[in-house]
Amino acid sequence: MRLSQYFLPVLKEEPKEAQIVSHRFMLRAGMIHQEAAGIYSWLPLGLRVLQNIENIVDDELQKAGCVPVLMPTLQPTDLWKESGRYDALGKEMLRFNDRAERELLYSPTCEEMIVNLFSAYVKSYKQLPLNLYQIQWKFRDEVRPRFGVMRGREFLMKDAYSFHVDVDDAKREYAKMYDAYTAIFKRMGLTTIAVAADSGAIGGNLSHEFQVIADTGESAVYYDAAFDEIRAGKLTLSGDEMRALYAAADEQHKPDAIPADRLRTARGIEVGHVFYLGQKYTQAMGVAVSGGDGAQVTPHMGCYGIGVSRLAGAIIEASHDENGIIWPESVAPFDAGIINLRMGDAACDTVCEQIYSHLKTAGLSPLYDDTDKRGGEKFATMDLIGLPWQITVGPRSAADGKVELKYRRTGEKSEISVEDAVAHITGQRTKRLAA
Amino acid sequence: MRLSQYFLPVLKEEPKEAQIVSHRFMLRAGMIHQEAAGIYSWLPLGLRVLQNIENIVDDELQKAGCVPVLMPTLQPTDLWKESGRYDALGKEMLRFNDRAERELLYSPTCEEMIVNLFSAYVKSYKQLPLNLYQIQWKFRDEVRPRFGVMRGREFLMKDAYSFHVDVDDAKREYAKMYDAYTAIFKRMGLTTIAVAADSGAIGGNLSHEFQVIADTGESAVYYDAAFDEIRAGKLTLSGDEMRALYAAADEQHKPDAIPADRLRTARGIEVGHVFYLGQKYTQAMGVAVSGGDGAQVTPHMGCYGIGVSRLAGAIIEASHDENGIIWPESVAPFDAGIINLRMGDAACDTVCEQIYSHLKTAGLSPLYDDTDKRGGEKFATMDLIGLPWQITVGPRSAADGKVELKYRRTGEKSEISVEDAVAHITGQRTKRLAA
Repeated sequence: MRLSQYFLPVLKEEPKEAQIVSHRFMLRAGMIHQEAAGIYSWLPLGLRVLQNIENIVDDELQKAGCVPVLMPTLQPTDLWKESGRYDALGKEMLRFNDRAERELLYSPTCEEMIVNLFSAYVKSYKQLPLNLYQIQWKFRDEVRPRFGVMRGREFLMKDAYSFHVDVDDAKREYAKMYDAYTAIFKRMGLTTIAVAADSGAIGGNLSHEFQVIADTGESAVYYDAAFDEIRAGKLTLSGDEMRALYAAADEQHKPDAIPADRLRTARGIEVGHVFYLGQKYTQAMGVAVSGGDGAQVTPHMGCYGIGVSRLAGAIIEASHDENGIIWPESVAPFDAGIINLRMGDAACDTVCEQIYSHLKTAGLSPLYDDTDKRGGEKFATMDLIGLPWQITVGPRSAADGKVELKYRRTGEKSEISVEDAVAHITGQRTKRLAA
Repeated sequence: MRLSQYFLPVLKEEPKEAQIVSHRFMLRAGMIHQEAAGIYSWLPLGLRVLQNIENIVDDELQKAGCVPVLMPTLQPTDLWKESGRYDALGKEMLRFNDRAERELLYSPTCEEMIVNLFSAYVKSYKQLPLNLYQIQWKFRDEVRPRFGVMRGREFLMKDAYSFHVDVDDAKREYAKMYDAYTAIFKRMGLTTIAVAADSGAIGGNLSHEFQVIADTGESAVYYDAAFDEIRAGKLTLSGDEMRALYAAADEQHKPDAIPADRLRTARGIEVGHVFYLGQKYTQAMGVAVSGGDGAQVTPHMGCYGIGVSRLAGAIIEASHDENGIIWPESVAPFDAGIINLRMGDAACDTVCEQIYSHLKTAGLSPLYDDTDKRGGEKFATMDLIGLPWQITVGPRSAADGKVELKYRRTGEKSEISVEDAVAHITGQRTKRLAA
């Protein structure tokens, strides 16, 4: 993408409304624009990140055997009266009448709708297990929306719902989804700890919250030191072994649960949640399938959420410095930025075009700053938007076929040939994707 | 995808509520499920088609230089009071209060929101032209939602909005978008005719409607015989030449506009619309940028819509037979179906697995019917869901390494080797994608 033909409205001023670093950088980097309290437009740069996050979630869930569907944002309220949650959700659930005075709601979550859909088609235990998921906009009318996309009202959520013939199969799926979540967050460059959690309003009796470890996290997380060893690559555990380790959120933490020398603590941001729901919804809504022996069976369910739009903020909270965002390669909006320090200089233009075309040919997405802005402003923008690599092309070095390559995460710079710069970026990326 | 692990709830009964063929087949093929009047869930097969359509639209628009954004589904009503459309849209626009009693609406279209977004960031003529688009869910509270996704209330729309320094540049963009639309619909296997249209409630004074030609179309279209020659490949015209040809919808048609022997008529389904809006919205909302000479300029706008979810239905209206859907290769949910006539037979299983794995290796998406259903049912399902190719593997021929290859569009069948079948499908697809 050529910046002159793109729409990247970076802000020079600090946005006053932003209380946390991710909100501040998302506004400054031209990723989002607020339309109403807790309701945002995603500008081009932000949308690319959001779609990269979506693609990782999609890919890992399909690998895990989940099947994608897409439910509407609006639904009739009738089903919520069947499940008993019509009153439970209160004002957080946005309800309104259509022109025919039928009551609709903007989905805050979809247990009722998916159970209804399931019961329309699935009649036999032979069709189980089944795990259906969607990535769709939800609305929760928070009293005090804040922190940008971290606690918005309209937000993008991945919600999956699984159906099983018995509790054992539901628990098998639960473990599989736990492992898929670990893989998803790892692929986004995040360290997460899954803490045993309270199941709250959704119901059920087994659940874990996935917390991204970040200094700016909203809640305290207590965990076994083994998690740090795993993170440092000194220890490898299976999903079962990981689930057996101690990890708890603030309100669940029991000080004497593990020896003090094994206890670690950090700040966390919740980005995912897995629940075993039991028969709560299928029972309330009277759903059954024929069992192997001819008797009717009420399916057991699990549900599994990921805050897709929230992740864009959480990744920034976990990965930034004072100059801006530092995107992990897997979610970066572009793989590399090319800075032309003197547009119109023949050597600079030629070298930039070469790099731009080589990176595209290699299947990468470069962002080429071909504007007539000053060098200082171009550097500041590139640091702010946090692409993994920066290639700076100035008139003196360009004449010698040299460029400056900078790795955003470490700030490390080197003056190398055009060919080496391209080879380095494409090679590093291949290595990282394979890891 | 293995059918035994998929969710494809085909219906054997004719759905009583469906009045048109696309609605009937979408319900029978397990593509959609109605949640409320005009509000649908997209089941796995339907979602794949919807995403294929989205990808084509995305790809062609980005080639045309449009930049993707994503606006929220809900927006505050204030801006609509500025533009003067708050009252104009009436009950079709779904409005409601949030918990703080602020009035919100579910976007039926986004001129106001994009103009507001534009004015927040774009201050100079140097940032023009700019064409921002999104593919996002919209809601229009139709009095009588009907025909499935063809006239739903919650629907997926691609809406693009362009900004220009003057009318000439807006008209240049208009022509470019007209050409992009022609390319988009052609890539979906559709024949469209763009008719001069009334600009209606959106305003402005130059507009074309893109109509898919289908016998079941809702309105009459009158056009120059040259369009038929273009379709038959006997004539090639530039966009400018095409726009100069006569084409009009029913209410705009003037019987003496072209010689009777040049006049043709057909039924059409509207799937896209391009408008030149002039300064209607920028003026009403007081938006200006600095011009080249320092004076303030009120930008000219264009807006360009495509009914993405409606297209899924329109394609079926244009391409089906009595047994089911006939998907064009570019939007087909899977490239080929593999029918195992005797699961558990060693030769059948081996041959099916071979084909399945070869097609996947070639980058195609096969759907493998590995269920224990009877042959007749498997054939009926494959015809109904309309994948371009069917490969049938029966015990006798499988033992000889032979399979039956069927091309869904023509019904043409041949008994050939496994290798030839795979080569044929991958080769044909390569040829078609290149065309």
